[in-house]
Amino acid sequence: MKSRHPELKNTKITDSFWSGIQELVRNSVIPYQYEAINDRIEGAEKSYSVENFVKAGKIAAALREGKSVPVYPADKWVYDDNNADKNAFHGWVFQDSDVYKWLEAAAYSLSCKPDYELEKRADGIIDLVCAAQLENGYLDTLYIINNRDEIFTNLKDFHELYCFGHLAEAAVAYYNSTGKDKLLNAALRFADLICKTFGESGVKGYPGHEIAELALVKLYEATGEKRYLKTAEFFIEERGKKPYYYDIVLGRKTVDDNYHYNQAHIQPKYQKEAVGHAVRGVYLYSGMADIVRHTDDAELYSACKALAENIINKKMYITGGIGATVDGEAFSFNYDLPNDLAYAETCASIGFIFFARRMLEIEPNAQIAAAAERALYNTVLSGMSEDGTRFFYVNPLEVLPDASHKDSRKRHIKPVRQKWFGCACCPPNLARLISSLGEYALTENESAVYIHQYVGGEYKIENGAVIINSDYSESGRVNFMITPERAFTLALRIPDWCDNFSISAPYKTKDGYALIDITEKSEILIEFEIKPRLVKCSNLVRANIGRAAVMRGPFVYCIEGADNGENLQLLSLSPKSALKYENGIITAEGFREEPDSELYCEYKPAKTEKTKITFIPYYKWGNRGENEMQVYIEINN
Amino acid sequence: MKSRHPELKNTKITDSFWSGIQELVRNSVIPYQYEAINDRIEGAEKSYSVENFVKAGKIAAALREGKSVPVYPADKWVYDDNNADKNAFHGWVFQDSDVYKWLEAAAYSLSCKPDYELEKRADGIIDLVCAAQLENGYLDTLYIINNRDEIFTNLKDFHELYCFGHLAEAAVAYYNSTGKDKLLNAALRFADLICKTFGESGVKGYPGHEIAELALVKLYEATGEKRYLKTAEFFIEERGKKPYYYDIVLGRKTVDDNYHYNQAHIQPKYQKEAVGHAVRGVYLYSGMADIVRHTDDAELYSACKALAENIINKKMYITGGIGATVDGEAFSFNYDLPNDLAYAETCASIGFIFFARRMLEIEPNAQIAAAAERALYNTVLSGMSEDGTRFFYVNPLEVLPDASHKDSRKRHIKPVRQKWFGCACCPPNLARLISSLGEYALTENESAVYIHQYVGGEYKIENGAVIINSDYSESGRVNFMITPERAFTLALRIPDWCDNFSISAPYKTKDGYALIDITEKSEILIEFEIKPRLVKCSNLVRANIGRAAVMRGPFVYCIEGADNGENLQLLSLSPKSALKYENGIITAEGFREEPDSELYCEYKPAKTEKTKITFIPYYKWGNRGENEMQVYIEINN
Repeated sequence: MKSRHPELKNTKITDSFWSGIQELVRNSVIPYQYEAINDRIEGAEKSYSVENFVKAGKIAAALREGKSVPVYPADKWVYDDNNADKNAFHGWVFQDSDVYKWLEAAAYSLSCKPDYELEKRADGIIDLVCAAQLENGYLDTLYIINNRDEIFTNLKDFHELYCFGHLAEAAVAYYNSTGKDKLLNAALRFADLICKTFGESGVKGYPGHEIAELALVKLYEATGEKRYLKTAEFFIEERGKKPYYYDIVLGRKTVDDNYHYNQAHIQPKYQKEAVGHAVRGVYLYSGMADIVRHTDDAELYSACKALAENIINKKMYITGGIGATVDGEAFSFNYDLPNDLAYAETCASIGFIFFARRMLEIEPNAQIAAAAERALYNTVLSGMSEDGTRFFYVNPLEVLPDASHKDSRKRHIKPVRQKWFGCACCPPNLARLISSLGEYALTENESAVYIHQYVGGEYKIENGAVIINSDYSESGRVNFMITPERAFTLALRIPDWCDNFSISAPYKTKDGYALIDITEKSEILIEFEIKPRLVKCSNLVRANIGRAAVMRGPFVYCIEGADNGENLQLLSLSPKSALKYENGIITAEGFREEPDSELYCEYKPAKTEKTKITFIPYYKWGNRGENEMQVYIEINN
Repeated sequence: MKSRHPELKNTKITDSFWSGIQELVRNSVIPYQYEAINDRIEGAEKSYSVENFVKAGKIAAALREGKSVPVYPADKWVYDDNNADKNAFHGWVFQDSDVYKWLEAAAYSLSCKPDYELEKRADGIIDLVCAAQLENGYLDTLYIINNRDEIFTNLKDFHELYCFGHLAEAAVAYYNSTGKDKLLNAALRFADLICKTFGESGVKGYPGHEIAELALVKLYEATGEKRYLKTAEFFIEERGKKPYYYDIVLGRKTVDDNYHYNQAHIQPKYQKEAVGHAVRGVYLYSGMADIVRHTDDAELYSACKALAENIINKKMYITGGIGATVDGEAFSFNYDLPNDLAYAETCASIGFIFFARRMLEIEPNAQIAAAAERALYNTVLSGMSEDGTRFFYVNPLEVLPDASHKDSRKRHIKPVRQKWFGCACCPPNLARLISSLGEYALTENESAVYIHQYVGGEYKIENGAVIINSDYSESGRVNFMITPERAFTLALRIPDWCDNFSISAPYKTKDGYALIDITEKSEILIEFEIKPRLVKCSNLVRANIGRAAVMRGPFVYCIEGADNGENLQLLSLSPKSALKYENGIITAEGFREEPDSELYCEYKPAKTEKTKITFIPYYKWGNRGENEMQVYIEINN
C-alpha cells in the first residue's frame, strides 16, 4: 500500500542536530544566497540571474507594446559582461534556476517560520519573474532576452524545460507555504504552453536535463489537472526512443553512447544501470517514481527499483556521494569509486534523497532509507561551511592540496569551500532540502506510519499527532509521543549501522523496520546502541583494499592534516585499536609509518610508532583552511 | 674525467637476451614500419609521412623552375585526406620525424649487419627527402607544401626544429653507418639556415618541442663546426628568458605556468624539478648534458644533476616509466605515481636513456645507470609486442579493460597493443634505441672502461678489445675477455638489486662500481646473485601503500588475468611467501580474498584461501588479448 509524506506546513523541526542546521540555512544561507543572485558578494563569481529577469521583463513589456526588440545569438550566448553586449543574456543557460531554487528554499523556510522581510524579498523576486513572462506563457530569460524565435529548438543542450521544472517546484512550494498564487499561475501558464507544444500530436521531444517530469507531477498534485501528469509520462516514454529525437532535430548522427550522458540511450523503463550525469539521473528517476506513484506502472517501477539498487549497491560512496567521475559529472562503471578523483556532487546526493523519498512513498524500504541517511548526514552537509557562506560542489574522500593545485586531473577537487559558483546549483539546492526536511522524516498511509529518518519535530499527520524527541545521531535515543486519530502501525526503521537496540513497547521486526501497534496515546522510547566502528568497503572497489573507514551512527568520520599532520597515508589502525568518542570527535591509538627515504627498496616490514589519531565527522572537513583529508585509513592486521 | 661511448660500428651485440630483440627489430619492426610510413598497413591509422615528402618534392621542383605553387593554411592544417585538399599536407605537424626515425633505425641496423635491400630502401627514402629541400636549405614538408611564407612563425606549437633534429640524428647515423653523405649534406644545409636565422643577432626563439639542441651537438661532433654547438647553446640559453619569446611573437600574454609544458618556464640552467611534457623534458636534458660535455658549464651541469635526481628519486615508476599524467603527457608532482592512470610513454623512457648515457659520459653514476636499466628492461620493451608489429604508447602499471572502455579518464590506457598510431613517435623511437644498443653498454676514457649495462657483445674500443658474454638478466653471470691496448681500470656497475656478487679477480668497490686493474689480457667472471624479490615503493607514493612488486634481476614482474583470473585486487602475498622462478615465470603461494557481497559492512578480517599466483615479466603483458594486469600486489602481514 502506497504512503505519502507529511505536508511541510504540518511539520515543525525541533531536532537537537537539525534545528541548528535549519537555523543556519534560514539566518545565513538564504540571506547570503539572496545577495549572491543579486551579484552583491564581493570576490564571488557573478550570477547574473536576477539581472537576467530584469532584462527579460523589459523585453516582455516592449513586446506587449509591439515595440521591436534586439536579437542576440542564443546558441552562442556569452557568460560574462566583459565579452558580450551588456544587454544580452549573461551567465549559464540554466541561470534562471538559481532564482527559482532560492524562492523554493525561501518558501519552505517561511513554511517553517514566518518572516515578513523574507516574504517581501520573495514577493519582489516573484514580481520580477512574472514580469518577464511572455504573453503565450513562455518563461526562460535566455531566449526571451536573446531570441524569441529559437525557443525549444535545442532541448538537448539548453535548459528551458529544466528552468521550467524549478519554476514549477518553487511555485508549488510558495503557494503551499504562503497561499499566494501569483508564481503558481505563471508556472501553470508556462506548463500549459509546454503541454500544448509537446505530446503525441506535437513535438516529440524531451528535456536534455531532466526535472520537468517530477515538476509536472507536482503541478498535477497541486491542481488535479491530468494534462500535467500526461506530459510528464510523455517525456519519460519518449526519452531514448530511436531514432533519437535530438539526432532528428539537430541533424546529427550520434552513437548510442553519447546519450548515456543524459540517460537518453534507451527508454527509462528499460534502464537498469545508473549512467551518465548523476544529477540528471536522479532527477529523472525521481520523475519516474512519481509516475509510478500515480499510475502503478509496473514496468517503470521495476526500472526504478533496479536503478536504486544499482546506485546503492555498486555506485555510492560510503559518504552517500554519487557520480564517481568529473568527466560528464557522471556515474562511473560498477564498483569504480576512487577517493581522490571523486566527483560526488552535493546536488547529486540531494537528488538521490528526492528519489529515495518517492520510492519510500511507493513502499517502505529500509535499504533505500539508509542510503538517503548516508547521503544526508555526510555529503549533503559537507556541501556547506559551518557558517553557511562557503560551499562544496564536489565532495572527495581524499584530498591532497598539492594535487588539487598541480594535477589537472584533480582540478575539480577543491581543498576548501568556495564563496559561490557561476554554476551555483548546489548551494540553493542544499537550502531547499534542509528547509523542507520535515517532508523526509516519515511517510504514512491509512494503517501505518513509517519513520525513515529520525528527525525530531512535531508532525501533524492524518493518523494523528507524532512528536519526536530525537537525539538520534548523538546518543541514539529517540522518544515518540503519539496521539493517534485511529489505530495504526508505527514502523521504526532499524538503521543498518545498529546491531543492538531496545524499544519500550512490544514490537516485531519486518524488512528492517520495528513494527509497533498504536491504539491509544503512547510514549515510546527507542534506543539504538551507537558507538564508533570500523567499516569495510567491498573488495570489489579497488581503491579501498586493505583500508577501512570510521563511522559513528550515521556519520562517516575522516582524518585531517590539521589534527594529524602531513602524509595521512602513513597513518594506520589495527582492527583492535580502541575508538574513543567524546564531544563529536573520535580518537584512536593508531600507528604512524616512518617516511621512506628511497623510492624503491627491498621489501621490509614498515617501521611504525604508536600515535594518537583524531577523526572528525566528514561533513566538517575543510573548515580549517587547506589541508590533507582522508576518509579511509590503512588497517594493519 | 669525462668518458665517451663506443662507436656503434665498433660494437657487435651477441647477447643471449638482446640479440633476439635486435633481430626482431631488424627483421620485423623496421620492415613493418617501412610499410607503415608508406601507408600500406591495413586497418592502421594512416601516416602520410612518405606521401608528404613526395608532395613537397614536387613543390620544391616547381619552385626551382619558378612556377607558381598553391598555398594552404599551415596553422590550420588538416590531419586526413577526407577533410582537406588532397594536395595539402596531411598527418601531424611533426610527421616528417617518423621518416627520419625510421632512417636512423635503419642506419643503426645497417651498422650492426649489412643488408642490401634495406640500404636500397633507405637510399630511396633519402632521395625523396633531399628532393623536398628548398634552395635555401629549408626542409619541413608542412610549410614547404602548405605555405613557404610562414616558416619559423610558430616555433611554440609547430615542429620544424623538432623535425630538423630528427633529420640531423638520422643523417649522422646514416653517414656513420654507410659513409654516404647525401642526407648529412641536406641536414647541414638546413642546420646552416637555422644557424643563420637564430642567434644573438637574429631571431631569439627556441624550439617548442626540444631535440634540435642534442641534434646540433651531433652535427658539431660529426663536422667540428663550432656554429652548430653555438646554436645549441643559444637555444638552451634563450629558453625561459622573460619576457617569453612566444608571448612576444605570438602576441599573447600567458602566465608562467603555461610554459612548464615545454620546460620554458625558466631558463634550463635554473631548472631543478622535471616538469611538463616528459618526452620534451628528457630531450632537453639530453641536449643540456651534451653542452656540458663540450663546455664544462658547471651551472648547467648542476641543473642536469638535479633534474636526473628528481626524476629518479621522485618521478619514476618502478618500471622506469616517466610522465605520470595524460594531461600534457607530463610529469606530475613529486611522488604522484598512480598505477592505473599512468602515462609512462615509451618515448619518454627512451629519452631518459638518451639523457642517462650523456650523463654517464660526463661522469659515471651507478644510480643513473640503474635507472636507465629499469627503463630499458621494462617500459621500453613493453612498448612492443612479441612479434614486433603492435605497440604501446602508454605503459600503465594496472589495467582493468572495463575501465579503459568505460572510464574516460583512462581512455589513454589501452589493454592491448595497437597496430600503429597516427602520432607514431614511439615505435620508430624504440627501433632506433634497440638498434644502437651497443652505444649504451659502456663508456671509456684514457684510464678506465665503465660497464653500465651488461649487454653481451664484442666491443672494439680505444682501451682494447672487450668481449662480453652476458647471461646477466637470466643467471646473473657475465664473462669478460679483455685484450687491452694499454693498462686501464675496468669498472663494473653493481646493480642496485644485487646484494651478493663474486668476481674472479681482485677488486675494490667505489660509488657502486667494482674496480679491477687490467694490465694484460684477462678473463673475468662476475656473478650477480639473482633471485625473485619483493620490492617496496616509498610510502610517500600514495598509490602503493600496503603493496609490493615482484622483481627478478632487472625485470619487474606483473600478474595478469590470463594466469590468475579476474579481480586481481583480491590476490595477496605474505612477505614470507616463497617466490619460485622457472622459465621466465615466477610463481608464489599467495592468497585470494573472497569477493564481498555487500558494498559496506562492519569491518572483519578478510576471508582468504591459499592460491598459486603466477607472475610474468612486465614487458610481456598484454600479449594474450584483453585482460586485467597489476604490477603491485597487496601484502598480508
